[in-house]
Amino acid sequence: MKVKVLVTPKAAVLDPQGVAVRDAMKHLGMPEVHSVRIGKYLEIEVDDKTPNLDSRLNDLCRDLLSNPVIEDYEVVK
Amino acid sequence: MKVKVLVTPKAAVLDPQGVAVRDAMKHLGMPEVHSVRIGKYLEIEVDDKTPNLDSRLNDLCRDLLSNPVIEDYEVVK
Repeated sequence: MKVKVLVTPKAAVLDPQGVAVRDAMKHLGMPEVHSVRIGKYLEIEVDDKTPNLDSRLNDLCRDLLSNPVIEDYEVVK
Repeated sequence: MKVKVLVTPKAAVLDPQGVAVRDAMKHLGMPEVHSVRIGKYLEIEVDDKTPNLDSRLNDLCRDLLSNPVIEDYEVVK
């Protein structure tokens, strides 16, 4: 079973990497871009029969995969 | 209009960051994890009325946002 996790910077946090990419996109022929925010994308292959998958995965997302001070995460199945 | 771009390492390419995260997840109480692959997630805010959005965005994904030698990208609307 494949689980996808998106880790994004919180809206209130500056994302200098995203600003740099936005400026590069504007210069490379797409001035219509307003903003870019860059996060991480994880594809996790896990046993189908994992007990309590949701809660354990959320714990790991909070403790290992994201920094809850500056990032949000979303688990997509 | 918000466009999302997923950039992932190609299946044939080693992903040492993903292997490290997989091992950490196994050690932190989820031995059911088989594999983890880590890519980038971009949220791009762009004008609704951008002409030829799809083709221009694909060009930029290929030229700027991904390294086509080792990465695939996917545009999600």
